[in-house]
Amino acid sequence: MAPSTRFAGSALARLTAARGLLYGGDYAPEQWPATTWREDAALMQAAGVNLVTVNVFGWSRIEPVEGERDFVWLDEVLDLLHESGIAVDLATPTASPPAWMATRYPETRPVTADGVRLWHGSRNHFCPTASVYRDRARRIAADLAARYAEHPAVVLWHVGNEFGQVCWCEGCAAEFRTWLADRYGDLDGVNQAWGTAFWGQHYGSWAEVVPPRATPYLPNPGTALDFRRFTSDALLRLYTEQRAEIRAAGASQPVTTNFMGFFPWLDPFTWTGELDVVSDDSYPDPADPEAPVRAALTHDLMRSLAGGGPWLLMEQAVSAVNWREHNLPKTTERMRSDALRAIAHGSDGVLSFQWRASASGAERFHSAMLPHAGADTRVHRGVRALGADLRSLAPLAGTPITARIALLFDWPSWWTATQRGLPTSRLDPLEQLLAWYRPLWRAGHAVDIVTGESDLTGYDLVLAPALHTVTDAALSTLRSAVGTSVLALGPFTAVADPNGAVRPAPLPAGLADLLGAQVEEWCPLGPDGAQLTSQNGQSRPGSPGSPGGLTGHAHTFAERLRLEGATVLATFTGADLDGCPAALRAPEANLFHLGCAVEEETMTAWIDLLTDAASLSPPQLPVPSGALETARRGDHLFLFNPGTRPVTTTLTHPGTDALTGAELAGELTVPAEGAVVMKENR
Amino acid sequence: MAPSTRFAGSALARLTAARGLLYGGDYAPEQWPATTWREDAALMQAAGVNLVTVNVFGWSRIEPVEGERDFVWLDEVLDLLHESGIAVDLATPTASPPAWMATRYPETRPVTADGVRLWHGSRNHFCPTASVYRDRARRIAADLAARYAEHPAVVLWHVGNEFGQVCWCEGCAAEFRTWLADRYGDLDGVNQAWGTAFWGQHYGSWAEVVPPRATPYLPNPGTALDFRRFTSDALLRLYTEQRAEIRAAGASQPVTTNFMGFFPWLDPFTWTGELDVVSDDSYPDPADPEAPVRAALTHDLMRSLAGGGPWLLMEQAVSAVNWREHNLPKTTERMRSDALRAIAHGSDGVLSFQWRASASGAERFHSAMLPHAGADTRVHRGVRALGADLRSLAPLAGTPITARIALLFDWPSWWTATQRGLPTSRLDPLEQLLAWYRPLWRAGHAVDIVTGESDLTGYDLVLAPALHTVTDAALSTLRSAVGTSVLALGPFTAVADPNGAVRPAPLPAGLADLLGAQVEEWCPLGPDGAQLTSQNGQSRPGSPGSPGGLTGHAHTFAERLRLEGATVLATFTGADLDGCPAALRAPEANLFHLGCAVEEETMTAWIDLLTDAASLSPPQLPVPSGALETARRGDHLFLFNPGTRPVTTTLTHPGTDALTGAELAGELTVPAEGAVVMKENR
Amino acid sequence: MAPSTRFAGSALARLTAARGLLYGGDYAPEQWPATTWREDAALMQAAGVNLVTVNVFGWSRIEPVEGERDFVWLDEVLDLLHESGIAVDLATPTASPPAWMATRYPETRPVTADGVRLWHGSRNHFCPTASVYRDRARRIAADLAARYAEHPAVVLWHVGNEFGQVCWCEGCAAEFRTWLADRYGDLDGVNQAWGTAFWGQHYGSWAEVVPPRATPYLPNPGTALDFRRFTSDALLRLYTEQRAEIRAAGASQPVTTNFMGFFPWLDPFTWTGELDVVSDDSYPDPADPEAPVRAALTHDLMRSLAGGGPWLLMEQAVSAVNWREHNLPKTTERMRSDALRAIAHGSDGVLSFQWRASASGAERFHSAMLPHAGADTRVHRGVRALGADLRSLAPLAGTPITARIALLFDWPSWWTATQRGLPTSRLDPLEQLLAWYRPLWRAGHAVDIVTGESDLTGYDLVLAPALHTVTDAALSTLRSAVGTSVLALGPFTAVADPNGAVRPAPLPAGLADLLGAQVEEWCPLGPDGAQLTSQNGQSRPGSPGSPGGLTGHAHTFAERLRLEGATVLATFTGADLDGCPAALRAPEANLFHLGCAVEEETMTAWIDLLTDAASLSPPQLPVPSGALETARRGDHLFLFNPGTRPVTTTLTHPGTDALTGAELAGELTVPAEGAVVMKENR
Repeated sequence: MAPSTRFAGSALARLTAARGLLYGGDYAPEQWPATTWREDAALMQAAGVNLVTVNVFGWSRIEPVEGERDFVWLDEVLDLLHESGIAVDLATPTASPPAWMATRYPETRPVTADGVRLWHGSRNHFCPTASVYRDRARRIAADLAARYAEHPAVVLWHVGNEFGQVCWCEGCAAEFRTWLADRYGDLDGVNQAWGTAFWGQHYGSWAEVVPPRATPYLPNPGTALDFRRFTSDALLRLYTEQRAEIRAAGASQPVTTNFMGFFPWLDPFTWTGELDVVSDDSYPDPADPEAPVRAALTHDLMRSLAGGGPWLLMEQAVSAVNWREHNLPKTTERMRSDALRAIAHGSDGVLSFQWRASASGAERFHSAMLPHAGADTRVHRGVRALGADLRSLAPLAGTPITARIALLFDWPSWWTATQRGLPTSRLDPLEQLLAWYRPLWRAGHAVDIVTGESDLTGYDLVLAPALHTVTDAALSTLRSAVGTSVLALGPFTAVADPNGAVRPAPLPAGLADLLGAQVEEWCPLGPDGAQLTSQNGQSRPGSPGSPGGLTGHAHTFAERLRLEGATVLATFTGADLDGCPAALRAPEANLFHLGCAVEEETMTAWIDLLTDAASLSPPQLPVPSGALETARRGDHLFLFNPGTRPVTTTLTHPGTDALTGAELAGELTVPAEGAVVMKENR
Repeated sequence: MAPSTRFAGSALARLTAARGLLYGGDYAPEQWPATTWREDAALMQAAGVNLVTVNVFGWSRIEPVEGERDFVWLDEVLDLLHESGIAVDLATPTASPPAWMATRYPETRPVTADGVRLWHGSRNHFCPTASVYRDRARRIAADLAARYAEHPAVVLWHVGNEFGQVCWCEGCAAEFRTWLADRYGDLDGVNQAWGTAFWGQHYGSWAEVVPPRATPYLPNPGTALDFRRFTSDALLRLYTEQRAEIRAAGASQPVTTNFMGFFPWLDPFTWTGELDVVSDDSYPDPADPEAPVRAALTHDLMRSLAGGGPWLLMEQAVSAVNWREHNLPKTTERMRSDALRAIAHGSDGVLSFQWRASASGAERFHSAMLPHAGADTRVHRGVRALGADLRSLAPLAGTPITARIALLFDWPSWWTATQRGLPTSRLDPLEQLLAWYRPLWRAGHAVDIVTGESDLTGYDLVLAPALHTVTDAALSTLRSAVGTSVLALGPFTAVADPNGAVRPAPLPAGLADLLGAQVEEWCPLGPDGAQLTSQNGQSRPGSPGSPGGLTGHAHTFAERLRLEGATVLATFTGADLDGCPAALRAPEANLFHLGCAVEEETMTAWIDLLTDAASLSPPQLPVPSGALETARRGDHLFLFNPGTRPVTTTLTHPGTDALTGAELAGELTVPAEGAVVMKENR
Repeated sequence: MAPSTRFAGSALARLTAARGLLYGGDYAPEQWPATTWREDAALMQAAGVNLVTVNVFGWSRIEPVEGERDFVWLDEVLDLLHESGIAVDLATPTASPPAWMATRYPETRPVTADGVRLWHGSRNHFCPTASVYRDRARRIAADLAARYAEHPAVVLWHVGNEFGQVCWCEGCAAEFRTWLADRYGDLDGVNQAWGTAFWGQHYGSWAEVVPPRATPYLPNPGTALDFRRFTSDALLRLYTEQRAEIRAAGASQPVTTNFMGFFPWLDPFTWTGELDVVSDDSYPDPADPEAPVRAALTHDLMRSLAGGGPWLLMEQAVSAVNWREHNLPKTTERMRSDALRAIAHGSDGVLSFQWRASASGAERFHSAMLPHAGADTRVHRGVRALGADLRSLAPLAGTPITARIALLFDWPSWWTATQRGLPTSRLDPLEQLLAWYRPLWRAGHAVDIVTGESDLTGYDLVLAPALHTVTDAALSTLRSAVGTSVLALGPFTAVADPNGAVRPAPLPAGLADLLGAQVEEWCPLGPDGAQLTSQNGQSRPGSPGSPGGLTGHAHTFAERLRLEGATVLATFTGADLDGCPAALRAPEANLFHLGCAVEEETMTAWIDLLTDAASLSPPQLPVPSGALETARRGDHLFLFNPGTRPVTTTLTHPGTDALTGAELAGELTVPAEGAVVMKENR
């Protein structure tokens, strides 16, 4: 793990060492009169709030006229919060530039791929490379930092908000060219990387290179891929430019910005080195039965980005959001579980958007810690109770989580394998990641989400469900991993180079020889899919050959694999693949390959086979396997019931309820959507 | 009711006093040679046509070259029609400016929210605020009026057509600013109204304010809402400008324009004061089983806009339209019923688009009174028969309808509650209006559709199914209504101020104290909805507590209500709302509240409960309740069979068939989709 | 048949006389180093490849800098191919202009109907009327032809690729006006043709006429229709301009371009006179059960365009494509059948896109004759086997196919009847064509696809399933056909003139009097459709009156027909059409009319009735009717099993397997998706 991510953990751990777990949310005092501020501070105290994020959208309040500054209101707010014992995560308000900028400098507004220059009147109306925007953003950051670097309330800096705006304007085209020149040295490099010999797309001068704007037919995949990288880097530059101003002003607090989980325009693996604290916004959908596992996966990503140390849940909702088409509220139990799940997976706090419900604006129907109806409400009672729960869990602050299993994922693979022009548009690497993660989550394994270029030593099991593009470095790392770990590959993995070009046969690139097999064809499957038959005799005795071994149903996608020595674990029937291998093990190496997408039961058998091969025991739990969702952090075992009916089970060993102090033994009931945190007496 | 709407009724009544019910349609002589005109006039006479709308699309014929005028053809047409005893509704042809205007003055063409300036070659290609367009429209209106003010054929003026064009251009931006300055006085007012403190959207100068064009994320709801108001007003200005020219030329005939029912860009409640005759275009879809109730609701809206007096069905189709994806023809019975339903709900005539089917153009496959195949056709025979029917109903001309029940609806509520960013996008106020209207329609009640700012005295029952935004005046009116009527509120009602901002708790605003309850949360429901259980003991004896009381299923949306003294009529089970109140009655006032969307059976029980509370007897009918759709106008009872099978029932009292003169007694059969008009011998 | 199409057949026949059937594909040496070229040539030889298409996307390689030329690589490639015995179809590389053109001359890039100027970075980024583009395209064609006119490898010229790009720019507007002036003489003609009296769309000057760009509402149908014609003609001009340069350079080889079957922006009937060889790109979807019949229909269109003589399958896929959302591979049997089906329907060769799979670019996941995984693959083994099969079928080269049945179809009808604003959007003429074709295909009839203006003498049966627009010439031809053939009309046929205007009653235009009936109304049907009842007594004895006569179900669309002497073959029940005629026969002429869309069983009975009336015996087959898909070319009978299970049947007469030489007698099994080619011993 890189030193910077280790430092990230430390920065947050230093914050929580004094305060325990962080609790609070976004706070927008600029929407309310000062009398309301005092009411808010008192209610925050009563709810156990110890950190609020301020000024995310304060730019037009601070600078209502270009070049002017009004910090008086913010002085008052910070002083009041400090007096009330509430620390501040102070934001540079650059996610929403003032209307004067959009009007006076139209080039600061972003342009779509169709050439439409978008307008202000919402938020995010900035071109990430516009020099006027960047300059004014640096200035406001500098002035803010100069004024509050020493303010005792400020414990964390929050640069911008949910970086993700994309732009296809002429200015971005120019910056894109510069970025490409940096990456490839010259135009020949670009032509080579993008394979512009195809369809006669050769570039003869830099001026010819443009972002992947609207074209008559399929765009060059390399252009599209590099434009993703470029955009992520351009956004990162906004962050680092503003951070530099904060540091230049002498501020010594840690600096962060809030990720949006698996967001497709920002590659967080290239950002974490620049973040003192890894923080994330997480909005699991109460209407989605998959929300718990999706949230857990994303939390594990964040903890992995933080090098295994603590990260911070910067935004979540205490109940309904308002930006989906239909927004279910959260039950009080679900609100509590969603918060505790983040803690269980390594977060050192729970912050919500937002403290007080806005009366006006596009998010007035988003739930808030203090609802429109006030403090005497179901939601706010839940907010207070959660505050108390988090205080009970203060000892967990700073506690890292160590995983023996690595799930590999990277943004370039995701970008490439969700472009147009593939064998299928239905094999989303993120969904494949989730499919492989789900059995591990059900079993309660700790899992890191890392890339193929990460340091994989120390993992017993390394899984690459959908690593479509691989760098040479990643291929080398993967090959090395076979020597120290069990490595398993999913379909359509190790296919392409970092530009999306298909690597020379045999595939999987760099591993086919070890595997003793190569991929001959990619075979999207018809609606009937294909059947899998376990090959008892050929796989090692016991696991996969046992009744209910690697059988079941393949859907969506399969590979035609050509055997060159590998052991066949399962074969296909149907889809013109009768008898072809579906799952393989290398003859002499800890390398496995699954050549299809499978349903959950088959995936569970596959993961069991792999954990078995890696000699990974299932986590020792006081409850029967599968009864509850579990996660362990330090000496705390979190037990979640993600279902909508209560679950009653019998504890195999006793413990203490970390929230109530009660002894836990014998029969345990976890309410629907509820959670229990158990200190195990081991 | 306002004087102007009373006048509106009178203007139309004066027209029909002499002529009986109006019958005819749009007539486009400019598409045909003069020989055809004479054939048309003869066929019109034979069909009983007494009014045609002329010149809706005649601009390029009158002014083929900018500034020239050719009225000769129109002189001839009007003379011929007059000679034939056919009156004329003469249109200002401003819905489709000539191609020279679109070409020479591109700024007259409308621009989309994405910045695309639309083209001519269709119709409606005008920006509603473009000064050149407005000027030329006034000029053509003036010249037309000067020439025909005294023409004996002309009995009505028809300004433009189906006003509804929207534009986001720079010119509209400038006009929008002026409109806002008028509404709010200054920019501070705008900032306050729109809550621009949210997301840092503060406007520091007028130049920064733009229409709600394409933005990176959710637009400010206040901006979007005011742009709707502005557009409706800009369209109204087009109407009043052209009307002013007509009046200035000395024309004394009444002036109208044709609404499009519940059209989302024009608020007719702000228009009716300017209309001498309320007229509407109504195109119920033969493929929609809900078409009859939707049509009846829209007709009731129009009658209400006319203050209870007669209105005019300005356009309808005798059979299929051509602008849906799949256009079913109407059976002859349905054509007759669709026309008679309008009469039953207060129309003083039936006009169709259009008289003669066009050979060319985008509407050549729209049905017409005279089809492509000529007069010896099913459709034209039906047209002649309908003409005879309307002559039989001449005594109804001018007859008003008085309703004891008011259903409240307003465009700002509809606009606000169909924006993005709400608890759910599935609770359309118009659909809620329809849900509450349906049981009343089934029972044959006369219902007015009015706003919360209307004069509600005189109504026994006032229903507010979905009045999301309420002005202070409306709150005051509603509160007063509780003293004189029974008032019932639906979910998500009295939530917001006129800018869409959430009003301070407790909600429903201005009424929660009377109700003895407040809304604590909005709870969109999952696919299972929630169950309702009638609370027998707590509601007044008899109705809701009886078997089949207020039970059933809530779907889509519920409210979490906090009791503060109200009587619970029904409670929820499910959706985390077990035991929470679903329907309430104020402890000491005639105020009811239904906190969810319900299915038809439950809605019927709810409406029964309310009519009962208002001591409203069901209409006395000679047929069993529910057997037929009914509507009464004067001493005529209209009986419709909206189903696709004949209905036979037994009359409880005899009457006379108003169309055939036959005695009606004993068994009565109404054919599928058919109608009977009965003069009751009472 | 026109002389030019006869010549077309001859040009291709001359090519194949020497070589046998053509086999090969697109070859992109510019994507590979020269060492790979030699490997390719050897593998091509081994696979039996005898023709490759080169240079389709070579422009930026030949002219990397404007005005320069680099032919050295192409010299080497052509020499190598020639040495290897592989002929070349040499393309003008104008489908993908170099990036310098798009950048230096932005007006060469196409503009959408919304005004977005599209970008390079894909392909097809040209405006078909841009003068700079056309000039540079002519220059590159001229230089290419000058260099290779005498090259012994070059046997065919391939102008551009898949012409189909559309543009709405100002330059196209100007060209459109010129085109209209040519067609209509003056603006009055345009106004008349488009019926601009409707909606006041009169054009007073040429500058007012624009392409059918985005409008507020439905566009003028005549404008839209003529813009289709104009675009097809503009594309044709690109072809003829480049061909002229080829001829001017002295090249004498035949010239072609590749059609895309039923592509909506190019009317091939107006092109074939300019093509020496008719060639087509055909990509049946393995996931579509209708793919075989759709492919057969398209092949028959191509053969008809070639006047019954051979045509060339210029592109197909040996397995999966990559541009659908989900791309199933082809089984080896399907790959073989898809290729042989083209031969069976008159192709003189099978060329695939492409020879070697591209490593980079938007089509890297498109299957290729030489896959990424190399020669030792399922796909490449199939490619070699197919090469051998084609060699066995060499005697078929040049063999024409004569059909006794003509199915009428034309692009203007298709364009008009798929516009907006019709009775229904669900009656696509192409789908109706397919519905009428399917029973003929099942029975193994040879069918020509021609227009209503084709020479119809010589056909025993002429079917017009969906000839919505008809020219006066076509009406005359159709009327004449009744004298010499059996003519049958489908619904919504002979309705409109070439501008889409409804022709004067009675309809079907020009034929109603012969038919003894006219269409009174068009009646889109509800979801229940209508039932058909055969009228035994009234139709001629035997066929339609027999059990299972013309009964069944009408869906989507029906006509209300008024009898004026015709014999009723079937009547409707339901949809307000009880007792109305559904199918008619003229009283004294060989004219039939089906007034609805029907399901396959009813359509089969209808076609049986018609072939019977035309005294057309079903093809004499050695297998039971319906057991296999069949097609006969010369003395070869192709037997296809389009299903996914093997079919075993018993031969009624013996033959020889044309591919294996084996005797075929008794029981014959055709594998799933497989094919057998039988030389009949007759």
